Amino acid sequence: MSEPRNIGFVGLGAMGLPMALNLVKKQFHVRGFDMKPEALAALNHAGGHVAANAAEAAHSADALVLMVVNIAQAESVLFDAGALAALPEAATVILMATCPPNSVAALAKRVEATGRHFIDAPVSGGVVGAQGGTLTIMAAASNEVIEASRSVLVAMGEKLFHVGLEAGQGAMVKTVNQLLCGVHIAAAAEGMALAEKAGIDGQVILDILGGSAASSWMLLNRGPRMVQDEPEVTSAVDIFVKDMSIVMDAGRASKAALPLAAAAHQMFLAASAQGHGLKDDSQVVLTYRDLAGLKKG
Amino acid sequence: MSEPRNIGFVGLGAMGLPMALNLVKKQFHVRGFDMKPEALAALNHAGGHVAANAAEAAHSADALVLMVVNIAQAESVLFDAGALAALPEAATVILMATCPPNSVAALAKRVEATGRHFIDAPVSGGVVGAQGGTLTIMAAASNEVIEASRSVLVAMGEKLFHVGLEAGQGAMVKTVNQLLCGVHIAAAAEGMALAEKAGIDGQVILDILGGSAASSWMLLNRGPRMVQDEPEVTSAVDIFVKDMSIVMDAGRASKAALPLAAAAHQMFLAASAQGHGLKDDSQVVLTYRDLAGLKKG
Repeated sequence: MSEPRNIGFVGLGAMGLPMALNLVKKQFHVRGFDMKPEALAALNHAGGHVAANAAEAAHSADALVLMVVNIAQAESVLFDAGALAALPEAATVILMATCPPNSVAALAKRVEATGRHFIDAPVSGGVVGAQGGTLTIMAAASNEVIEASRSVLVAMGEKLFHVGLEAGQGAMVKTVNQLLCGVHIAAAAEGMALAEKAGIDGQVILDILGGSAASSWMLLNRGPRMVQDEPEVTSAVDIFVKDMSIVMDAGRASKAALPLAAAAHQMFLAASAQGHGLKDDSQVVLTYRDLAGLKKG
Repeated sequence: MSEPRNIGFVGLGAMGLPMALNLVKKQFHVRGFDMKPEALAALNHAGGHVAANAAEAAHSADALVLMVVNIAQAESVLFDAGALAALPEAATVILMATCPPNSVAALAKRVEATGRHFIDAPVSGGVVGAQGGTLTIMAAASNEVIEASRSVLVAMGEKLFHVGLEAGQGAMVKTVNQLLCGVHIAAAAEGMALAEKAGIDGQVILDILGGSAASSWMLLNRGPRMVQDEPEVTSAVDIFVKDMSIVMDAGRASKAALPLAAAAHQMFLAASAQGHGLKDDSQVVLTYRDLAGLKKG
């Protein structure tokens, strides 16, 4: 396979746009598509090229990057919108959205049946990582396929991990990442509410446990927003309702019991049911306080 | 209250002995008692004094430190063995063992009813912290009582937090600490087993998630032992069976629902039931692997 030069990019959202711009900066010829005109304008302004639809973005591309919302959108772009048919025979589909592992594996089979290559390559690091090109990429595909697209991947992410040979394994690592993130947020809220019930100040808990063996990245990051009244929304409760659903589906599909993830999922779901779905995910603590008979504030 | 000089110390185990030795180093007159002659010999060798029983250790002490195994031992030392009666009227009982918050509150009432003072002061930091005098101390009592014993406490711990005015609040902070530690170990094992079921190498999970938002102190510390065959035992599964029992009892006593802690507790209990109770607590992963239909190795 020759070095990729032409990149099709579908999904120019909060993550996708800065990722596409990093490809432009690294001298790739990027042709992007999104439903939002302002995203296309931003790509164009930065030196990228605008496609009229997903198929046009794929046309003559060496690699087609998908940074869409979910697996349904990825399938729709590839099959309904004709992007896969428009993509040259030897090209590679790089799916970077967070999707269920078994669905990714099934999608890869359909793509590979047409002769194209497929890389399952979800990311972590958020918008900050997308902007800085410092994302962690969890890639699964054969060595040959990964190596051929290495320059594309490292243009978007600082840490490229080759986690397995089978599509779905990248998605699974991302799934385990979300499992731990979701459980750690819920655990921090559970501990916080228990302490508050005993009349202990939440900030004292953060000061002590943030520096002990009880610490987690999420305790340090979300904990301070658990003791604020109307915290900034960095990621919503409903995102974890969705992500923990992917976690539970992955456990069911691969037959692995996930008792902590199941409990955390129920707490995010209850938080959403209580009207907190669009609040910062730290606000699952409101549901814990409610369960403990505490009123906030 | 005058500056404390004479310290009675009961419970010279893996934590208690080095804590007592740190008091000796700081020029306190320490009279210690333990059931094990070798612990008494070590105290004597380091310049401490040996008591024939708990009451003798308490006799003429300004403060009586209890670093016993559990609340039952603390009660036994104070009431059955006569240490409280032997302790001078104005002296202070400092309970540093990990005990249930409501039991600590009840014990404090009984001690204070005799005119003595009581500090609820559990620690975190383990044997390493005990040896180095770098423990974190979570102390609850009135300002006056804490200040009067400050020199005693800071001789054993680097970070002294005054977490509340009521006995039981120190124990509650320690309880929340254990809640998070236990949930984080179980969550790491849950994620590890899910990844392994998908054919992903455990070390890859640690390399990626240890540097992501999914990280926790426990993932970094216990994770590596989850991918070893016969890891060193730094703290046993059965310790978490006990500590998560304290967590669940605390939730019940204060009426706070703890769904994640409950799930984690069941996993440690199952691990113990399966014969892993004396293994390193990271080995709760064996139970997760078993639940996922994976055989180890």
